This record gives sequence, C-alpha cells and structure tokens, in this order.
Amino acid sequence: MAEQRWGTIVPSRSEQRDLKLEALLQAAAQSFNKKGFHGTSLADLAREFGVTKPALYHYVSNKQELLFRCHMISLSSAVDAIHEAEASSGNGLERIRVVVYNYLRAITENPTACLVIFEDGALDGDHTKEVLATRDGIEGKLREFVAMGIADGSIVPCDPKMAVFTLLGAINWVSRWHSPEGAWNGDSIAHAMTEQLLRSLARQPADTLPTSPRPAPSAGE
Amino acid sequence: MAEQRWGTIVPSRSEQRDLKLEALLQAAAQSFNKKGFHGTSLADLAREFGVTKPALYHYVSNKQELLFRCHMISLSSAVDAIHEAEASSGNGLERIRVVVYNYLRAITENPTACLVIFEDGALDGDHTKEVLATRDGIEGKLREFVAMGIADGSIVPCDPKMAVFTLLGAINWVSRWHSPEGAWNGDSIAHAMTEQLLRSLARQPADTLPTSPRPAPSAGE
Repeated sequence: MAEQRWGTIVPSRSEQRDLKLEALLQAAAQSFNKKGFHGTSLADLAREFGVTKPALYHYVSNKQELLFRCHMISLSSAVDAIHEAEASSGNGLERIRVVVYNYLRAITENPTACLVIFEDGALDGDHTKEVLATRDGIEGKLREFVAMGIADGSIVPCDPKMAVFTLLGAINWVSRWHSPEGAWNGDSIAHAMTEQLLRSLARQPADTLPTSPRPAPSAGE
Repeated sequence: MAEQRWGTIVPSRSEQRDLKLEALLQAAAQSFNKKGFHGTSLADLAREFGVTKPALYHYVSNKQELLFRCHMISLSSAVDAIHEAEASSGNGLERIRVVVYNYLRAITENPTACLVIFEDGALDGDHTKEVLATRDGIEGKLREFVAMGIADGSIVPCDPKMAVFTLLGAINWVSRWHSPEGAWNGDSIAHAMTEQLLRSLARQPADTLPTSPRPAPSAGE
C-alpha cells in the first residue's frame, strides 16, 4: 500500500520513524543516566512508550546498540560546538567560550546530549573504540584551544590537560542536577557557568558573574 | 579460644576485620563507579578477594548496604573537609580552598572517597534520605562559604548555588579520569584544580596556574 500524506498535517512514515527513534533515544539516555546500563531494560522502555518489546527491535537491535547510539549523539553535541568554534576567528579563550556555552545549552535542552555513564563492558570492543576515539578527539581539540589561548595571551599559563578536565567535569555534571522545572532556564545556566569557567582561565577575568537567571532568549538570539 | 597477639606484628582480630571491611568497601566503590550498581555483584567482589559470597555477609548484609556505606564514606571526606574549613579563621575564598583541596586530595588518594553513581532505586527510602540529606548539607555549607566570600570581598558577586554546582562537578568528575599511574600525582592534581577553581570565583585571581606537576609532598606537609 503506497504511503499517503495529507499535506504536511501528518508526518510521513519516514518522518514518523525518525520522531519515534528520537523519542526512544531520549528516553534511553535518561534511563542510562538515571539507572545505569545494567539497570536499564528494553522492556521498561517499551512499556514507557506503550509498545511491545519486539516493536523496539525495528529501531535498534539490542540494548548495547541503543547505548552506543546515545553515546554518539551525546558526543555529537560537543563535536558540533567544536566545529563552530573552529569556524570562528576568535582567540583561544573565545573558542573555549563557544564550545562551553553551546555544549551546556545542548545538555540543558536535551537529555540525550549528555551521557555520563561509562560502565565497563557495556559497549563491545569496536563501539568502545569509536566512543573513546571521538571523546579523545573532543578533549584534544579543547586542549588545542587552551594552548592557543595561552599563546595569544587570552588565557593564563596553565596545563591544558588539567584545564580541560576541569571544564568538562563541571559541564558533564550538569545532567546530574539540572531540572527543567528549576528557576534557572537552560540559557541562564549555560551563560552563568560559561562565565564562571572562563573566569578560571581568562587572562582578564570579568569583575562579576551572573547573580540571577536572565530572561529567556528571544527568537533569533 | 582466646585471641592471641604476637606484639604488634599480627593485627588483632578486630583490626583484621576493619582492614578487610575497608578493602571490601574500596573494591565495592571502584566497582560501583566502573560498572554501576546493577553491574556490581557480591559474587564478583567475593571472587576478587578469594572468599566465598557467604563470607562477605559477615561484613555487610546485602549489596544495598554496601552501596549505602560507600556513599556515607564518600560523603564523609567532604564533611571532614568542611569541618576543617569551619574551624579555620579564613575568609570565604580561603574556606572554599580548604574544602576543594582536601576533598580533591581524598578523591585522588582513595577511590572510596568519591561515589559518582546515584542510580534510582539502588538505595532504599531511608538510606536515600540519609544520603541526600548529607549531600544537601555539604552543598549548603559550600554555598554559605561562597556567600561569606561575596560579603567579605574575597569572592566576586555570583549565584552561590550555580557556583557550587560548578565546583562540585569538576571535583566529582576526577574519579572518571584520574589514574594513580598518571604523571600528575594526587597532590598536584588537587593543587592545580584548586587554583583553577578558585580563580573562577576569586575577586583577585592569580596571574598563572600550575603548568606541571609539583614534587610529591614531603612527610608532614
């Protein structure tokens, strides 16, 4: 039976499939972060969506694949932020700003954007290699930006590796305490934390940090 | 049979028991951090120590109790650091320094000092309450120190809650990347990260950060 669309009122089948997969990956990432890999079950996820467990196998072949895809989506937020920083003409500190703010925005907007678990044995060998290589690539680029900032005078002398571990720890931890219902919206959290983290490295640190959430950004900001 | 001791050559039975329990808690904390609560099994821990699973029940009644005890030990490092800061006559920033440095030292020295997992449902209701109350107490004290620093002029105006989340994220993340075999010893990591994190809040930030590990501290330091 050919697929029928009622204009754009009803999403096409492939759009529906994408939407469903996205919802599944979001729910999976939240469950992995809250319950760990071993504490997450496909049966629970299926129940959450009101579908059968076999229905999930149209989307992923097993829990390991689900975890791997969540990991790669989560890392892609950071990779995107790094590409944006690289495309800019900013100095080292400004590039760090772009990555830290954008990555924090992604994390506060979308639970899939940060996967904090990394349980031994949860991913198979090839998947582990790919996740670790991507993560190492992100850390390496951030260290380059810090070294660039030391060279161009925007960042104080420091050890780039320590500096980046400190930034990433603060950022990755957000998924542990952030609640969409909190008084600070995602933009305010990202803004305040970016200012504080930049202050930790900037040659000329700001005199003050945000003391209250800022209004939700208007469209186009 | 009465307990016999050969001077202090052989630990007494109660000392042996304490040592065994400590070793068990350390191994458990490492396993919880690496494999999650659900991925950790008492049988694996027993195998690691070359004992039977029933032998472990002389020390803890189940995996939940093991997790709870690990949580409380881990929080006690932070509580100790806070007591030391409170006993000092330092300003707000100096108190933050005492807590951040001491807590980082504890984490880099002892894997039991930091438990990063907090899986839903792993602890029962009363234990969850006790862990959360202790954690909230620690966060509350740190926020007090930040507010004190803002008032005494040692810390820039900021939101103490955001500031403390940022500090704690960077600190708690250390257990994810720290390796005792790394070039930076525990003291050097604690020192460099403390300087960087203080810089993020200090009214008068230092002009530079550590660029290389410092020599191992001599006894008595």
